[in-house]
Amino acid sequence: MTKSADSRGIKSLPEQMRDLDQPFDHNLEPYRCRVRVGWGDCDPARIAYTARIPEWVLDAIEGWYVYCLCSGWYEMNLERGIGTPFVSLNCDFFSPVTPRHPLEMAVYVSRLGRASLSHHVDGYQDDVLCFTASTTASFVDASAMKAVPIPANMRSNIENYERNQGCEFAEK
Amino acid sequence: MTKSADSRGIKSLPEQMRDLDQPFDHNLEPYRCRVRVGWGDCDPARIAYTARIPEWVLDAIEGWYVYCLCSGWYEMNLERGIGTPFVSLNCDFFSPVTPRHPLEMAVYVSRLGRASLSHHVDGYQDDVLCFTASTTASFVDASAMKAVPIPANMRSNIENYERNQGCEFAEK
Amino acid sequence: MTKSADSRGIKSLPEQMRDLDQPFDHNLEPYRCRVRVGWGDCDPARIAYTARIPEWVLDAIEGWYVYCLCSGWYEMNLERGIGTPFVSLNCDFFSPVTPRHPLEMAVYVSRLGRASLSHHVDGYQDDVLCFTASTTASFVDASAMKAVPIPANMRSNIENYERNQGCEFAEK
Amino acid sequence: MTKSADSRGIKSLPEQMRDLDQPFDHNLEPYRCRVRVGWGDCDPARIAYTARIPEWVLDAIEGWYVYCLCSGWYEMNLERGIGTPFVSLNCDFFSPVTPRHPLEMAVYVSRLGRASLSHHVDGYQDDVLCFTASTTASFVDASAMKAVPIPANMRSNIENYERNQGCEFAEK
Repeated sequence: MTKSADSRGIKSLPEQMRDLDQPFDHNLEPYRCRVRVGWGDCDPARIAYTARIPEWVLDAIEGWYVYCLCSGWYEMNLERGIGTPFVSLNCDFFSPVTPRHPLEMAVYVSRLGRASLSHHVDGYQDDVLCFTASTTASFVDASAMKAVPIPANMRSNIENYERNQGCEFAEK
Repeated sequence: MTKSADSRGIKSLPEQMRDLDQPFDHNLEPYRCRVRVGWGDCDPARIAYTARIPEWVLDAIEGWYVYCLCSGWYEMNLERGIGTPFVSLNCDFFSPVTPRHPLEMAVYVSRLGRASLSHHVDGYQDDVLCFTASTTASFVDASAMKAVPIPANMRSNIENYERNQGCEFAEK
Repeated sequence: MTKSADSRGIKSLPEQMRDLDQPFDHNLEPYRCRVRVGWGDCDPARIAYTARIPEWVLDAIEGWYVYCLCSGWYEMNLERGIGTPFVSLNCDFFSPVTPRHPLEMAVYVSRLGRASLSHHVDGYQDDVLCFTASTTASFVDASAMKAVPIPANMRSNIENYERNQGCEFAEK
Repeated sequence: MTKSADSRGIKSLPEQMRDLDQPFDHNLEPYRCRVRVGWGDCDPARIAYTARIPEWVLDAIEGWYVYCLCSGWYEMNLERGIGTPFVSLNCDFFSPVTPRHPLEMAVYVSRLGRASLSHHVDGYQDDVLCFTASTTASFVDASAMKAVPIPANMRSNIENYERNQGCEFAEK
């Protein structure tokens, strides 16, 4: 079992936080993702177990980071030196999630603070709203674990996303 | 691989909901449980991944059902015909959870409605409050999936628990 | 929180096992799927935690059922009355899985018995073989939990898949 | 949300691997642990989902490390500089696991190599053998990710454990 030091070694973090090299325009639709709900996601009531939903919500938000900021949490932490620990996670469950339809999630930015970022996630199956979630994370220097302002180019991308995420969310 | 029909068969639900045979007094401390946090619960930031916390909160609440109502959700659903789907789950994260100490959770009843039940969960490590969670579930007839009043003997047990859970929570 | 009885009710199983209406030809490539490896899949060694791999293997195999037999385990059990409990699961780990690349899995039929079915799964990242897995499941009547011969049209589909899955696997 | 740098910071690994300070005798029973099987562990067949079992097996083995070597994988890696990545994991499933009884697991050392360690795990419910698992892990320097001989005092503890784990396993 040989492994490259690159993929395997537990190394220290980058010495400095690193922003995106430049902001970029994306006139994009809000980030959406689709999940196949499986047998193992369901409990004996034949619906997805409640604890799966926060997992999916976090997966969707990590997908949003890749989409909007070009890096998931692994790169954000290990290569950019930026951590984004969650401060809160709130879910409301309206209708059960089952394997009968794919789960579709849409992710919105609901608040952009100086050093914190809030998301809103809607989860649908077959056009029925199954759950909503709202989360807040703080941006921190991953080495010092101190809150830091969101780097400028990342902030620019997030503002751009917020402007383009459509009016459905604007009213919330 | 032989399996008894009993343990294995997917049977239909009981025809009728079934309450506890009788209420009982328990002058007990609030329900507490202790979890060993493992390597696999942690992410590369070396702290428990955010999604583990709702899982632990739900485990603690299921433990409370065993403690206060003498049956976990498996028996509640399959033998008593009562489902308790969650309507909401809210978590606030104050301090990271790590494998350095056991995770201790305490479960309180924060609101007892006619057909719904709210819990509050505190999660501690080494006397530091790491997170709080609040949840609301509705009581339903597991066959019809219609909301039903909490059965009388169960309600009596919950009221008794609420009275004995200590004043720290009373003010919330 | 309203829910349709359809999606929510815990109903009894179909009275009889139900095969596919007819077999069909598929001159298809072996089933492959792609997984985004996330931050929460990784442990503090910065690689996917070992227990995630059996989860992904099972997800891939369930995907194969959808692909080859037109139904996942949820439908197989609840609508066709057929269960497929696993008898064994063996994994060999060659190289760590990380979020740096997508995880690509390919699923092969390695043995088709009268009432059992064995799969082989290869997991790759960036063209490096990270793990292999082999599993065996038995086909059972989901109500009686007794082993049953694989229904004829399903068997025909599986044989067809086996013929078309390519020579790389034939030698194993 | 303040966090101590201690519990939160992603630091580099210890510069050197660190053995136990001394070996110790333990004339102990084989390591056993008990798990409450919950609603969320079960799938719609009303038994624990297959993927839960490797998770429990790994939890039991991590518990064994705490018991026999005084540290879980978190400390082994981050404080002792020793990683133990799994090379293989094999499970055989004999009888379904359900919430009706606690799951009891016993962990045995099945082979002690120069730089590798194999375990055997038996999982019981109500005195019925539900599954067995066998795993092999290699010992590595966590920084270099190179295989290393098991440190002397740890080896001594493992040999001692092996001698005392009882004859039932001896014949395997």
